[in-house]
Amino acid sequence: MRILFTAAATLALATASFAQEAEAPAPSPGEIVNAAPTEDWTIIDPEDLMVMTLPPLPDGTERKVVMQLISEPFSQGWVENIRTLARAQYWDGSAILRVQDNYVVQWGQPDPEMGVEPKPVPPGLNVMTEGDYTALWSDVPAVFENAPEMTAKMVANLEATLRGEQVYRGDPYAALTINAEGWPVAVEDGYVWPVHCYGMVGVGRGMSPDTGDGSQLYTVIGHAPRHLDRNIALVGRIIEGIEHLSSLPRGKGPLGFYEDESKRVPIVSVRMGAELPESEIPRFEYLSTSSESFAKYADARANRRDPFFIVPAGGADICNIPVPVRRFEIVDEGE
Amino acid sequence: MRILFTAAATLALATASFAQEAEAPAPSPGEIVNAAPTEDWTIIDPEDLMVMTLPPLPDGTERKVVMQLISEPFSQGWVENIRTLARAQYWDGSAILRVQDNYVVQWGQPDPEMGVEPKPVPPGLNVMTEGDYTALWSDVPAVFENAPEMTAKMVANLEATLRGEQVYRGDPYAALTINAEGWPVAVEDGYVWPVHCYGMVGVGRGMSPDTGDGSQLYTVIGHAPRHLDRNIALVGRIIEGIEHLSSLPRGKGPLGFYEDESKRVPIVSVRMGAELPESEIPRFEYLSTSSESFAKYADARANRRDPFFIVPAGGADICNIPVPVRRFEIVDEGE
Repeated sequence: MRILFTAAATLALATASFAQEAEAPAPSPGEIVNAAPTEDWTIIDPEDLMVMTLPPLPDGTERKVVMQLISEPFSQGWVENIRTLARAQYWDGSAILRVQDNYVVQWGQPDPEMGVEPKPVPPGLNVMTEGDYTALWSDVPAVFENAPEMTAKMVANLEATLRGEQVYRGDPYAALTINAEGWPVAVEDGYVWPVHCYGMVGVGRGMSPDTGDGSQLYTVIGHAPRHLDRNIALVGRIIEGIEHLSSLPRGKGPLGFYEDESKRVPIVSVRMGAELPESEIPRFEYLSTSSESFAKYADARANRRDPFFIVPAGGADICNIPVPVRRFEIVDEGE
Repeated sequence: MRILFTAAATLALATASFAQEAEAPAPSPGEIVNAAPTEDWTIIDPEDLMVMTLPPLPDGTERKVVMQLISEPFSQGWVENIRTLARAQYWDGSAILRVQDNYVVQWGQPDPEMGVEPKPVPPGLNVMTEGDYTALWSDVPAVFENAPEMTAKMVANLEATLRGEQVYRGDPYAALTINAEGWPVAVEDGYVWPVHCYGMVGVGRGMSPDTGDGSQLYTVIGHAPRHLDRNIALVGRIIEGIEHLSSLPRGKGPLGFYEDESKRVPIVSVRMGAELPESEIPRFEYLSTSSESFAKYADARANRRDPFFIVPAGGADICNIPVPVRRFEIVDEGE
């Protein structure tokens, strides 16, 4: 059986309890998550996890960053490349190249113009094209069928956009946004795409949409740069250790690149979760976005009723409803 | 006369030029800002600036953080307190108390429960109440009259919400959001309030809305926590040096507080800009939000036509249209 190991780190303001009506305190978002039954949690396959190790800090603090790869049908050509690159140990000896405040941290092998002989990528990487940045609605079966947080208005909006009607956007960037199948996605004009929230991981690319093989990656460390949606491939998200990236010194060159290469933090290794020794395999689970617990959590994020709050917002943008993720531990029940 | 000193650091992806039609490259957001005529820039009064000095880094890097106080009619009771506290040198010898990833950095004198005898606040601070978290529409004259980025749909939406009608929110948190009088604000139900974008500065408070005198402040270092709008007083924004706060190690205690007080970065001093010696007075200006240049800039942020982009978003949330701010230098024209 699995037991909880550490609490989720997803909830910023989850300390206070609140009273929805006198004598009947309603749970906070964090309390809803903590009270969710085991069956509302979905285990993440270690085949979908990747562990990046940076050198320890001078005080001995270990630095490991755990990333979850995005599930089908999104960006799968790039995701496959990333698995190939990790298995080839391509990123071992690479570095953090760029830290731009309120934007991204980017890593990989340095570009040739940085004066380093580039490390060859393994053979067989997919070349992706413009159409791969979104998924057709028809390729995303059941994504929204099991999304209990959807209100009647959201359903009507979704149906209208799928009929190709012009709808009033409920979000500045799309007709509809929702957490579905464990991921934050947007829908419009018959297409579905993942969105650039804090901690999401994308594929660096050049001017042409078919550049970017997955060998340089970045993660968002500021306000969601949603204008990048459908323009850069999202391949996953950081689920643990993002602070080892977000707290790095900002680069002083254009776009936050480290001009002084001695400032680049070296990457010791990047490994697929399932490749690690048994005791080091990362064990994570997320709160199923099709569960009633998730619907309650999303509602509480949009309508904070904790006593601290004067005015509940009556809404929340998709990036302010992060999918709760936590560690669990496998314990031997014995005999 | 004033001349430009350094380029604004507000534009993340402003490097590429773009072609709106063949042979007629349209300017990028950054190019629009750089091309704005002098009269489109508004000088920030040094009386509205505050400079926080942290100790230099081990490599000698100076650490100064410049904050702009919010203009009338927002949060003015708290803003007055902050001026009083700065003039009393209240924050000298205080510290960064809390760094929570994707959320806030908070500073001030430690709370009594942190085991330190609290430094007394200067006399005469205002006690603010619940109604002070928003401004009545009627108290915000002309805020929207000079907002050329407003589309006909936004104007209709604004008029409807001012008539008290239920409007379809164009943003998950408010009927309307816009940069007006130099600040990002939201409007609904006859009220106007500033919003929690990256870098905005707010007043820490306890459970009751009338706690929080301005003696502990925080700034946003992650995705805009808009659920705090109307619940915590916003008093300004960081306009230079936020990287000295956002790149600090995250605290390991609840809510990112530093449990080990040796981790707290000391604050050497906080001074009003106008109190500094002439040569150190900060000289900043912002792109007037009522200028045509700003309207073009906002449109370009919402519709990226640079060659890098495949699909312009067709919209942008208020926190992705940061008001451009830059330094200028006063030069003596001679005779």
